[in-house]
Amino acid sequence: MRLIEELVGSFKDQELALPIWYENESLKVLDQTRLPFEEKIYTFTNVGQLGDAIRSMMIRGSGAIGICGAYGILLAALKSNGNTQAVREAAKLLKSTRPTAVNLMKTVDEMTSVAEGSGEELIVNVEKKAVEILKRQLEFEYDLGSHGANLIEDGDTIMTHCHSGAFGGAGYGGRALSVIRTAHEQGKNIHVYTCETRPYLQGARITALELKKFGIPHTLITDNMSGFCMREGKIDKVVVGSDRVAANGDLANKVGTYMHALAAQEHNIPFYTATSSHTIDFSTVSGESIEVEMRDAAEVTHFKGIPTAPEGTEALYPSFDITPHHLITGIITEKGVVSVPYETNLKKVIDQENVFQK
Amino acid sequence: MRLIEELVGSFKDQELALPIWYENESLKVLDQTRLPFEEKIYTFTNVGQLGDAIRSMMIRGSGAIGICGAYGILLAALKSNGNTQAVREAAKLLKSTRPTAVNLMKTVDEMTSVAEGSGEELIVNVEKKAVEILKRQLEFEYDLGSHGANLIEDGDTIMTHCHSGAFGGAGYGGRALSVIRTAHEQGKNIHVYTCETRPYLQGARITALELKKFGIPHTLITDNMSGFCMREGKIDKVVVGSDRVAANGDLANKVGTYMHALAAQEHNIPFYTATSSHTIDFSTVSGESIEVEMRDAAEVTHFKGIPTAPEGTEALYPSFDITPHHLITGIITEKGVVSVPYETNLKKVIDQENVFQK
Repeated sequence: MRLIEELVGSFKDQELALPIWYENESLKVLDQTRLPFEEKIYTFTNVGQLGDAIRSMMIRGSGAIGICGAYGILLAALKSNGNTQAVREAAKLLKSTRPTAVNLMKTVDEMTSVAEGSGEELIVNVEKKAVEILKRQLEFEYDLGSHGANLIEDGDTIMTHCHSGAFGGAGYGGRALSVIRTAHEQGKNIHVYTCETRPYLQGARITALELKKFGIPHTLITDNMSGFCMREGKIDKVVVGSDRVAANGDLANKVGTYMHALAAQEHNIPFYTATSSHTIDFSTVSGESIEVEMRDAAEVTHFKGIPTAPEGTEALYPSFDITPHHLITGIITEKGVVSVPYETNLKKVIDQENVFQK
Repeated sequence: MRLIEELVGSFKDQELALPIWYENESLKVLDQTRLPFEEKIYTFTNVGQLGDAIRSMMIRGSGAIGICGAYGILLAALKSNGNTQAVREAAKLLKSTRPTAVNLMKTVDEMTSVAEGSGEELIVNVEKKAVEILKRQLEFEYDLGSHGANLIEDGDTIMTHCHSGAFGGAGYGGRALSVIRTAHEQGKNIHVYTCETRPYLQGARITALELKKFGIPHTLITDNMSGFCMREGKIDKVVVGSDRVAANGDLANKVGTYMHALAAQEHNIPFYTATSSHTIDFSTVSGESIEVEMRDAAEVTHFKGIPTAPEGTEALYPSFDITPHHLITGIITEKGVVSVPYETNLKKVIDQENVFQK
């Protein structure tokens, strides 16, 4: 872990779990596919290779991908000899790597809007904007964490699903883990249950690793154990991330989230999502109209590449599921915590300019 | 698969997925720990070695373990030269292998009660009783399947969890899979969703294999996907096994069962357990008083021996969970299907002589 001040000046005296950082005119990227057993860092000076890395899922999470896009433009500017056309081509390449990643599109467009000037001036303009984007992501994580931590009490046990953490953002705690980390740093005595999150095991591989790095006590369970843990009184709150929130508060998040929410409802356990105001999509009326992406079923019939079922077994891999708003106690954003009725309150809390861009 | 008639005469012209069979004065046992990739058969003539195999979990399921116990006594009788004391010692050894396996205790006691007579007579008495126990287990599976199949309609998609099948019984379909297999053999067009069942993957490894052997169309999902599948209208009924049923109908079954039951309730999907009348424990008032066995947490931090989480990660492994009776639509037994109110109806349907023996 490195201090933020090394990264963006004396911003805040805080250790970060960095997924990406800029150093000696190159971008250092942590390969998240190898976690938790190997923390391999790749060094990029070439935008084409960085694009391949984004495509390969080496970098995950909208915040982290956005920062990659921003610094990718800086790498292009460094090699451009003041040729802004080359920067614009790099922007096009970066945007093509993950065409559905809204934050990447937005960030790259923001970078190209300042990619002006000759030679050194172009580089200065672009670097300044990249640092601004990085700082903004960190501020987002602190703000989200601070609002969310108000909901956490001393002694709470918090359950989370999948990975909604530092490596998906700028290194403080991303989304759900910003809430958990802030509560921990406030001196609250908390314990986290992290669900392994089949089939890709983000909870076992990455969330458990970050909790270890941050020194937060935690216990790993399989996804099917949350009901047992709740019935035994082991869970006080649930905090998960979300890929998208509809106008009525329905949320899309990693498959399994819905079942945890149902179990939480049965046991009167508050269920929160920690998210960015940018993931609230006012143009999507409800979860009914969110189409669930089906991924390669080989992930289900295999475990880290090893088959688990008889050859030829048919399987299904919905990448996320929909949790209806009546199961959600509150939606934590960087602007505050939104509670029911979501239909009206989401609009009140969230600045209308920040609505999700299709 | 082998025909039942080879095994116990012309009992029924039906293919079996045999976990155990007797042949040439020896007992053949399928090693269930190696499934589904290797169907390795061990041959036992020595009771001590058979005991080690039971202890190692090579044989799973109360029906299968009972049959092993019965034929274990036959192996002892064959080597006894008419010494009934040697047979009683073998009985003691077999009972010590799984001290909580009620059916094993009962079966071995039944065998020793007929272990009388000199030389050949002893062997004839014991073999006759072993065949009777095997036939009784098969009759149990047919009867259970027949009662349960009445609940299944043409076109149904049935979800199951863990393995409650042929290899846990005498080879027809054990418990939940007897219901599914009978419905399939009645010509009903059914499809099965089998949950992989972390951490031990019985659903992916064994249930999927049996469904393949029986030619029943099926789809594998991870445990956290059942809520998604129900919300999408993909599941019509849930049928699971159960380790124990309390007097009020609460049931103990493999961890994850409870969460499936909660999701089924939310979507008004009938939720059944297929079980033996012997697993109904009238001395246990409710699920509250069933103590959940905690197993080795290394199963959760590993997958088939490969670590999935950072070294030293603390984990929890409750081997089963409790599903309260209000979530259960019906309890399928070999004597008929019991519906609410369980407190009175379980006693009416189940012959009082068959109550669970502690």
